[in-house]
Amino acid sequence: GTQAHPRPHQDALYILLHRNQVLTEEGKQFLIPFTHFQPNANMSAVYCGKWHGQDIFVCRFESIPKGFSESGLRELLFLQDQDHYILLSRAHQLATWDRDHQFCGRCGTSMTEKHQAEHTKICPSCQLRHYPRISPCIIVSIRKDDHILLARGPQAPKDRYSNIAGFVEAGETLEQAVAREVREEVGLEITNIRYVDSQPWSFPHQLMVGFFADYKNGDIVPALGEIEDANWYSIDALPNIPNNATISGQLIHAHVAHIKAQRS
Amino acid sequence: GTQAHPRPHQDALYILLHRNQVLTEEGKQFLIPFTHFQPNANMSAVYCGKWHGQDIFVCRFESIPKGFSESGLRELLFLQDQDHYILLSRAHQLATWDRDHQFCGRCGTSMTEKHQAEHTKICPSCQLRHYPRISPCIIVSIRKDDHILLARGPQAPKDRYSNIAGFVEAGETLEQAVAREVREEVGLEITNIRYVDSQPWSFPHQLMVGFFADYKNGDIVPALGEIEDANWYSIDALPNIPNNATISGQLIHAHVAHIKAQRS
Ligand SMILES: NC(=O)c1ccc[n+]([C@@H]2O[C@H](COP(=O)([O-])OP(=O)(O)OC[C@H]3O[C@@H](n4cnc5c(N)ncnc54)[C@H](O)[C@@H]3O)[C@@H](O)[C@H]2O)c1
Ligand SMILES: NC(=O)c1ccc[n+]([C@@H]2O[C@H](COP(=O)([O-])OP(=O)(O)OC[C@H]3O[C@@H](n4cnc5c(N)ncnc54)[C@H](O)[C@@H]3O)[C@@H](O)[C@H]2O)c1
Repeated sequence: GTQAHPRPHQDALYILLHRNQVLTEEGKQFLIPFTHFQPNANMSAVYCGKWHGQDIFVCRFESIPKGFSESGLRELLFLQDQDHYILLSRAHQLATWDRDHQFCGRCGTSMTEKHQAEHTKICPSCQLRHYPRISPCIIVSIRKDDHILLARGPQAPKDRYSNIAGFVEAGETLEQAVAREVREEVGLEITNIRYVDSQPWSFPHQLMVGFFADYKNGDIVPALGEIEDANWYSIDALPNIPNNATISGQLIHAHVAHIKAQRS
Repeated sequence: GTQAHPRPHQDALYILLHRNQVLTEEGKQFLIPFTHFQPNANMSAVYCGKWHGQDIFVCRFESIPKGFSESGLRELLFLQDQDHYILLSRAHQLATWDRDHQFCGRCGTSMTEKHQAEHTKICPSCQLRHYPRISPCIIVSIRKDDHILLARGPQAPKDRYSNIAGFVEAGETLEQAVAREVREEVGLEITNIRYVDSQPWSFPHQLMVGFFADYKNGDIVPALGEIEDANWYSIDALPNIPNNATISGQLIHAHVAHIKAQRS
């Protein structure tokens, strides 16, 4: 956009962050009117755009103002409808951008000014532009006849199984990233890699890109330290899988429906 | 990967950069053996992985060593086969990452050490991890009956027409980015947005994600400063379009073939 962002004002709504938590009022309310907190002259507010006609800003707090509680971002995201989910995850990403670009990574100069109309900081010394980081990740559901591959990482809850996922590396296509991650994490070769859907995932700034693929060859060999357990599961007897609000849960459900439709 | 990267050694091949140019020997040769230049103890070499069994490193030079010429990255990329293209664009992205993360963006601390086994620098003071940046961008070919939309930006050569493209913003899906960019750049609403392909684009670190879409409604209104001219072109009378080595050229050709196949 070329129009200047507004400055924080009385009629806007505010999302307040404290460390990695969101400050909420009663009923997990996270959109806070100006008069409910003590706006601070040197608080750093980032403009998040208009939302249902109102300007939204996100601010970081050093302490918790009276009357507020802390809520986890992940918990809060799942409580919300799609509209609130997108707003909150966007606000969190923009706040992360602001916090992680206080200094120019190339020359070390302090950057206190944001661009007037875009989410970018321009280094006053070397002119490098710093945009919010978005990290593309792939996630893939793999089919072998009436079975799909599900795996568990070391951090996952003990009985929760999910898809293979991972970060795209510099200089590769999305499809190459899918094939590489599957090879690295479970030692399998796959084919017929095809795009399904995408979803932002703000922990802290992933963009998940979801695929289906078919098994080609190899035996499952879980990568040490990355995969604790991986198996082929019959689509009629799935284990505990991720929440359907995540692209991971959505991919599994869509793949199962697709395989069932072909079977009948 | 969990295996430590090798240190620069005599049997490796080197890609040498000077500012934004690539240093080449005769015949635009850019993979340089160790003995052809003066390796320097404090030159910063980034490991690019194994390539046909050989270790590859990329290094930045402050001046041009004897016997070398400068070649433009873009020119060089188009001269190469797919294999060399991917290596060179990956090397360029890794060198950019190294140069742009000399200091921690969060706390300003100097970062001289790279991680032993991954392309990441960990801030010695605040522990923030800095990975190579990859910026997802969408690019879309839009159909209206037997016509496709082609547009020209202010920087493009006078008679060269291409697709609508733009950077994904924090907190949006790829499909939302496609719809937003088309709305912002030419004022049209589109439908049936579908994924086609992806391609890394190292100027400096885009990951292009290509889509087809169908026209829904609206009249073309080019955005001031971003689009100089945009029109519907009959697939039988296309203007000058981008090189087929780019995803832009590939999308146009694939869309035309798709429309022709439906017509016959
Ligand atoms: N939304 C979903 O449905 C869903 C499902 C599965 C995974 N994910 C996300 O996908 C991501 C990848 O999954 P994973 O299992 O490989 O995660 P992971 O957290 O195990 O990360 C694996 C490796 O990636 C490295 N890494 C971290 N950030 C990076 C970056 N920006 N660029 C390159 N490398 C980076 C880490 O050092 C680590 O070695 C995770 O962030 C995870 O939260 C989302
Ligand atoms: N490979 C291809 O076939 C192909 C074709 C068309 C465009 N592209 C690339 O796609 C990109 C987008 O195309 P465009 O026409 O909008 O380009 P552009 O260069 O005109 O950029 C448009 C805007 O994006 C902003 N921007 C720059 N880097 C950003 C980032 N990392 N995150 C968010 N915003 C950023 C700029 O400030 C500018 O206002 C360009 O980099 C272009 O080179 C590639």
